[in-house]
Amino acid sequence: MYIFVGTNTDIMENELAKIHLSVDCTVLGFDGNRLEVLLIRRTGEEGGREFHDMKLPGSLILDNEELDDAARRVLTELTGLKNITLQQFKAFGSMDRTKDPKDVHWLEHAQKAHVHRIVTVAYMALVKIGRAMIREMEGSEALWVPVGAIPPLAFDHNEIIGEALAHLRSSASMDPSILYALLPRKFTVTQLRNLYEIVFGSKLDPANFYKKMIQLPYLVALDEHEKGVAHRAARYFRFDKTIYNKSRL
Amino acid sequence: MYIFVGTNTDIMENELAKIHLSVDCTVLGFDGNRLEVLLIRRTGEEGGREFHDMKLPGSLILDNEELDDAARRVLTELTGLKNITLQQFKAFGSMDRTKDPKDVHWLEHAQKAHVHRIVTVAYMALVKIGRAMIREMEGSEALWVPVGAIPPLAFDHNEIIGEALAHLRSSASMDPSILYALLPRKFTVTQLRNLYEIVFGSKLDPANFYKKMIQLPYLVALDEHEKGVAHRAARYFRFDKTIYNKSRL
Repeated sequence: MYIFVGTNTDIMENELAKIHLSVDCTVLGFDGNRLEVLLIRRTGEEGGREFHDMKLPGSLILDNEELDDAARRVLTELTGLKNITLQQFKAFGSMDRTKDPKDVHWLEHAQKAHVHRIVTVAYMALVKIGRAMIREMEGSEALWVPVGAIPPLAFDHNEIIGEALAHLRSSASMDPSILYALLPRKFTVTQLRNLYEIVFGSKLDPANFYKKMIQLPYLVALDEHEKGVAHRAARYFRFDKTIYNKSRL
Repeated sequence: MYIFVGTNTDIMENELAKIHLSVDCTVLGFDGNRLEVLLIRRTGEEGGREFHDMKLPGSLILDNEELDDAARRVLTELTGLKNITLQQFKAFGSMDRTKDPKDVHWLEHAQKAHVHRIVTVAYMALVKIGRAMIREMEGSEALWVPVGAIPPLAFDHNEIIGEALAHLRSSASMDPSILYALLPRKFTVTQLRNLYEIVFGSKLDPANFYKKMIQLPYLVALDEHEKGVAHRAARYFRFDKTIYNKSRL
């Protein structure tokens, strides 16, 4: 005897959502001046014409594959990047995700499967864009695109990036330490201000920002300055996580 | 002509994950003394014997149903509760979720569908447990269980609750204002300390806690005291969101 404590809605098998599951990775990187997102080039055909556009690194997950493993695998396969710390931030499951027939056709051709509805689990990573990283990406179809200059992307990938940026903004306003994952190990206050301005979307007064920042106990001044710059060489700072954690108690 | 910029892994349709998608709601409530989670009773049969246990309010999503809509529908259908603000907090997709045959059999019977792998999108809500809420739940199979006394649940629901509590802890350490969603509109410092102790998992010195809390500008003392208590009647306070937001700039 079964007593099903289920929902009142009388569900038939054919009313259940037929779903493919994918992972998509929003890797945000800072090059010292600009916040950029990692995209991959896509080529397809629609209505007899070839098209070229871009999308987030992502793919359907395999059977018996854990979500986190799928995100890591897909990012490495599509971009060459290894050892990126990805964190799940939201699942996107709207039916509108596949409203553009060109995306459905592209995916059905690629996966040799009928595609109805795709729910994607979005991951996020914050990285410093450095020379080693650019080298690792060589030979892939991946490229960095400034967040201010993202063209219309496949599926709902513009929306996913928008939500990743909103997530970064709200996390950073509660815990500014996460921003230092984007900065190089040593950075100038101008670089830090650039990053604040981009993340919080507002211009900051340079003098006031400098005064406020050098008072933070966890921003440690280094005995080192910029080299080979036309303007007055700025001092480098580093972020001290231990001091930061103490200051938050 | 298609050039599929996909993953290197040669994916055949039958290697793709066959997935059912569900939503599960972790509603955490505080009754002034204890933090509790909303569970529903489940009855099933395994190996010829009836069993009774509990699970989170959750169910498979319907075709053409948005994730957020599914979470709201399922919570209302299973618990009677309306107007609960649910927020997605994590997708759980491990194959281990269905390792207990009794869960698979129960679900297959209930849904009249073959169940292989179920990915669930977990939602979370913080509520004040009041008399009106208890009344709304009447006639449902839902009940409040203290988080310190949760028995083994269906699927990975113990793990989901554990992650919801960890999420609450880390969010509250960055932004304590979210804790006030759990407290009644007017509360005593003892109730606030109870909540802090449960969320952060450590005992706090009552006198020190009191001294610290009454200094917070956003905790506003009311001209009202507890009534009908054996001990000295404590003063009520309220949380002022406007003052809080200003104090965080």
